[in-house]
Amino acid sequence: MSHSMTELIGKKRDGGSLTAAELEWIIAEYTADVIPDYQLSAFLMAVIFRGMSTEELSAWTDAMLHSGDVLDLSSIAMPKIDKHSTGGVGDKISIPLAPLVTACGVAIPMMSGRGLGHTGGTLDKLDTIPGFKSRLDPDVFARQLDELGLVLAGQSETLVPADRRIYALRDASGTVPAVPLIASSIMSKKLAEDLDGLVLDVKIGSGAFMKDVASGTTLAETMVKLGRSHNTPVVGFLTDMDQPLGTEVGNANEMVESIAILRGEGPEDTTELTMVLGAEMLVLAGVADDRAAARAQLEAAVDTGAGLEVFAKVIDAQGGDPAVLDDPTLLPSADHAHVVAAERDGYVQRCDALAVGRSAVRLGAGRQAKEDEIDPGVGITVHAKVGDEVAAGDPLATVRYNTADQLNACLPVLETAWVMSEEPQPTIPLILGEVS
Amino acid sequence: MSHSMTELIGKKRDGGSLTAAELEWIIAEYTADVIPDYQLSAFLMAVIFRGMSTEELSAWTDAMLHSGDVLDLSSIAMPKIDKHSTGGVGDKISIPLAPLVTACGVAIPMMSGRGLGHTGGTLDKLDTIPGFKSRLDPDVFARQLDELGLVLAGQSETLVPADRRIYALRDASGTVPAVPLIASSIMSKKLAEDLDGLVLDVKIGSGAFMKDVASGTTLAETMVKLGRSHNTPVVGFLTDMDQPLGTEVGNANEMVESIAILRGEGPEDTTELTMVLGAEMLVLAGVADDRAAARAQLEAAVDTGAGLEVFAKVIDAQGGDPAVLDDPTLLPSADHAHVVAAERDGYVQRCDALAVGRSAVRLGAGRQAKEDEIDPGVGITVHAKVGDEVAAGDPLATVRYNTADQLNACLPVLETAWVMSEEPQPTIPLILGEVS
Repeated sequence: MSHSMTELIGKKRDGGSLTAAELEWIIAEYTADVIPDYQLSAFLMAVIFRGMSTEELSAWTDAMLHSGDVLDLSSIAMPKIDKHSTGGVGDKISIPLAPLVTACGVAIPMMSGRGLGHTGGTLDKLDTIPGFKSRLDPDVFARQLDELGLVLAGQSETLVPADRRIYALRDASGTVPAVPLIASSIMSKKLAEDLDGLVLDVKIGSGAFMKDVASGTTLAETMVKLGRSHNTPVVGFLTDMDQPLGTEVGNANEMVESIAILRGEGPEDTTELTMVLGAEMLVLAGVADDRAAARAQLEAAVDTGAGLEVFAKVIDAQGGDPAVLDDPTLLPSADHAHVVAAERDGYVQRCDALAVGRSAVRLGAGRQAKEDEIDPGVGITVHAKVGDEVAAGDPLATVRYNTADQLNACLPVLETAWVMSEEPQPTIPLILGEVS
Repeated sequence: MSHSMTELIGKKRDGGSLTAAELEWIIAEYTADVIPDYQLSAFLMAVIFRGMSTEELSAWTDAMLHSGDVLDLSSIAMPKIDKHSTGGVGDKISIPLAPLVTACGVAIPMMSGRGLGHTGGTLDKLDTIPGFKSRLDPDVFARQLDELGLVLAGQSETLVPADRRIYALRDASGTVPAVPLIASSIMSKKLAEDLDGLVLDVKIGSGAFMKDVASGTTLAETMVKLGRSHNTPVVGFLTDMDQPLGTEVGNANEMVESIAILRGEGPEDTTELTMVLGAEMLVLAGVADDRAAARAQLEAAVDTGAGLEVFAKVIDAQGGDPAVLDDPTLLPSADHAHVVAAERDGYVQRCDALAVGRSAVRLGAGRQAKEDEIDPGVGITVHAKVGDEVAAGDPLATVRYNTADQLNACLPVLETAWVMSEEPQPTIPLILGEVS
């Protein structure tokens, strides 16, 4: 069937609904280079204003999902569950979470991305392990998942190619912020993983894409609904990203924190979030009856070292050196440290995730543009979080850097992150809501 | 100054206002091929939803106006007034109007376009005169305007190049229908003509871009305001385009009707509209004190043949054969005629301009796409307009065609144009409103 793209743009622009066939045609012709970028970007901008109906979104996501290969993991006996975070500052949860959940009997075909802008990427953090390879052939991917129950890979080029093309266009055309476009981008990739269930971590706050609980709830509900229309149970958590997560923001230093969590020695917030999200994965997989039982299993996987053991095998299978788990000094580390100290006594009222994330990009821990290189050893350690009492001279943060230019670019932004008060301040709750 | 286009798209998308410098930058960088099509089309779609403030629109129009050459006609002694129609079916008014107004002492540096879709173009109609050349060098243009007071030319390539680029992108990206984009496209080209005043004919109805008086009024008011901010008095008329204008729809046959109007032998509606718009041009030019006096001058230009004389000189100067004015059989003419007859007695309730316009395109009188060729001799003569009483067998229209394929493509659409009633029907008023 053939359609006129200008007519379909006009239909969406004027508030009409497109049929599944029309939406499939758009995705197919765009990925076949028939529909030009300037038509799709205009269409996507119209979607920002007009939205998509439930039926339209399901068809659009389905068309993206089928724009490339879809994994067939039916030969894998274990239940297959994945977790996705909408991204934030200091969010390394995937790294300790996956080995612990797999140690409890759940297969995770995890595909992660690189960091862009102020949010970090799991892939950049994994890449700090000497020798580690995240690019795996599809047959290697499936074999390792079958044997070890866990793969920590980059996005496959053959899965959902339409999303890669469309995301790049959205990024360059100001058409990123639309719930249907975000939800279809995430869900098409996750549905291509042939999952039995998915746990979503929708970040809320200054360092997140969603700035308030209401918009985060809409996004989570949209993705839960998309999962339902594709027979994949999805549970979404809304969690705080107004301040950085955990203590480490960077790459190698986030790997160090991840290993600490796996050992039961991590910060309170990242440990707690690992347990909350992991427990839900075990329940969705049916390997635990309820969250309490699931949590006990995860805690046992920490105590027995079963999680670390899975991680060691995965690192080894993917060409990396598992010795980093016992000796984090094998990870890259910057040469110098600079402490940002509190100027006076008080309580932390704000520790702005966006400012910390932006300062980390300036430090070299993240990318302004996709083609930028990162410095894996630089990073920021956050010592004072919202609600903490500090005395003048106490460290708020330690910056690890290699060059004076890195430090000088980072500091002016980093120093704006903290707002102090003379009055005691409440802490920020970690879990803000839940959608299923 | 440098800006980020994605940030400016985001600003408009989120309801913000852009500065004059930002809007100038967009036009400059787009015409310099720095900003890609996919960013501008997304921006234009955001403008469709968010609009532009008066200040934004003035700056945007100004930037377009200065994207190329601007005529300097200060050496021309006569007042310079132009007329612009937003386009319709059977709208040949420019052709009889311009010579009559010039005969009354007003210079008209008229630049016209070709037809696209169901609306005809003045240039295509002028091109039916054997030998006539509408492509004039700028110095020839200025010299002829000085000597004869009238030039009937195509759009200059050097005037407002940004509009040509942006219009093509809008046409292909579903971003045509936005008042600020339409107004800036029209006004930038007219302001580049160095005018002392402008009369607008904003068409309303099925065959026009604006379907109702309210949206037409908004467009007219926007253009009047843009003229004011550029010190150019603009008067806008809202006129009917729910049925075709006059009796002839096509190219050579519209030239025949135009010549008839110049001789005082034209249909009532096209003659009246020529007088109304022409009188306003004379008043704006200051060569008549009021509309009544202006109209008397125009009628004298018909009676004395002064208008025909101007037209003959202009045709001769532009390489054409003025003998067509006395002998219209020198114009192209199709070989065959087919009459569409009324099936029963009754009154014309509807004579749909859009259907007639579309059937004319199928006949070969217009273009679906810019690169299509037209057949100058084919056309439709409309015999029955809204309010007319007809008997069964009376002709509703005569189709002049060269090939059976042309006729067969045209007829099924043409026959849908008429809706008959057994009850007497009121006529449609020609002038629906006025804005100044």
